[in-house]
Amino acid sequence: MTTQPSLDVCLTPELLSLFDLRGRVAVVVDILRATSSMVTALAAGVTHIVPLSELEECRTYAAQGYLTAAERDGRQAAGFDLGNSPFGYLDEAAPVRGRAVAITTTNGTRALQLSLSADAVVVGAFLNLQAVAAFARQQQKDVVVVCAGWKGNFNLEDTLFAGALAELLAPDFDITSSDATLAAYQLWLQAKPDLATYLLQSAHVRRLNSLEANKDMDFCVRLNEYDLVPIWRDGRIVVN
Amino acid sequence: MTTQPSLDVCLTPELLSLFDLRGRVAVVVDILRATSSMVTALAAGVTHIVPLSELEECRTYAAQGYLTAAERDGRQAAGFDLGNSPFGYLDEAAPVRGRAVAITTTNGTRALQLSLSADAVVVGAFLNLQAVAAFARQQQKDVVVVCAGWKGNFNLEDTLFAGALAELLAPDFDITSSDATLAAYQLWLQAKPDLATYLLQSAHVRRLNSLEANKDMDFCVRLNEYDLVPIWRDGRIVVN
Repeated sequence: MTTQPSLDVCLTPELLSLFDLRGRVAVVVDILRATSSMVTALAAGVTHIVPLSELEECRTYAAQGYLTAAERDGRQAAGFDLGNSPFGYLDEAAPVRGRAVAITTTNGTRALQLSLSADAVVVGAFLNLQAVAAFARQQQKDVVVVCAGWKGNFNLEDTLFAGALAELLAPDFDITSSDATLAAYQLWLQAKPDLATYLLQSAHVRRLNSLEANKDMDFCVRLNEYDLVPIWRDGRIVVN
Repeated sequence: MTTQPSLDVCLTPELLSLFDLRGRVAVVVDILRATSSMVTALAAGVTHIVPLSELEECRTYAAQGYLTAAERDGRQAAGFDLGNSPFGYLDEAAPVRGRAVAITTTNGTRALQLSLSADAVVVGAFLNLQAVAAFARQQQKDVVVVCAGWKGNFNLEDTLFAGALAELLAPDFDITSSDATLAAYQLWLQAKPDLATYLLQSAHVRRLNSLEANKDMDFCVRLNEYDLVPIWRDGRIVVN
């Protein structure tokens, strides 16, 4: 008999129908790069983020004073202020403090919107790993990590985040009742000593391969750069 | 530029819509225990196997002289000759040589039936790993390992089989373009030194935990016990 809450991992949004998120905490993760960028944006002083599915809808937010950010297939979409790089929020020449951001991405926005039946939907990244773990411990509810994946399929970097969270929560959560959690945890133990090099194996990472993307990846695998938890509230992502 | 065929892994049948199996070889795997039992049955002299979705349909085959095998939620269903244990085909007191078998299982049959758009659909297990690898090399086509999973979700043992196949095919196939293949391969490298112990972590294995199930598992993780490849042909699984 265990009374510990459980940590489960939904490896791609395509599998969300197998999970009942009601009464649970959903941790949505899209390491490369949507959730890493959201964490960075809020840390840089963005007031809130509106995640959207469609480019056109996202574009309309410019008239309301929003910065607009859009990525399709790993590239910044034409006619938007920002792409999907976290460095877009760290440019001193174009400060974002006090601004709101409307964002649309290939995989991350979809994972968020499919997770809204959860009691709480928070945004996870390596950049705020410890903060997410602390939030999960406080909630004392079952947690499901929702990996954004790549076009519906499994990806390595989001799964590794789930494994890293499993390691941190292992003392307080049941991480052994789900094979997905176990696999994520085992992969994380392999990757942990040199996460950036491990991820260079990844198909997605090689797909993004370019000078800018490598700089982004080096940043997105930093652990605990920011001590904040973005949370979904009334259609916006804000700092909890 | 690579001209090698690729090895991809579909981690659960729920993700099959993301794969185009046409022109490819599908290797369907349900280690515990459907595909392990199918390999064992054919090795024991069963003439052919008819995989079916429904218990009732399976039962009707008894009138045509078939042995009937049925499993639901890991247990033998009432009123059938056999369950899902490979040992059902190894009982000298009840020889199966020359008999045909109609079989229905929770996950394995579904994975098979969803894979029929492939150029060839073969049945994989640790028991015939080398034989499947040899078949794949001969075909010189892209291969997709279709993991049966557990009620639509990821499981460890089928993924480990995919990783073992990736190791064998690595010299001749591209195993790095798919994150699922990479993860399966890495997990296999961890598990390989002691597969049975590694699988004792698995939720599914513990779900099956019982004297009979442990005996089955010890058998199902044996490598290359049988040198044959079951293949789908006209609604039947036969030895290739």
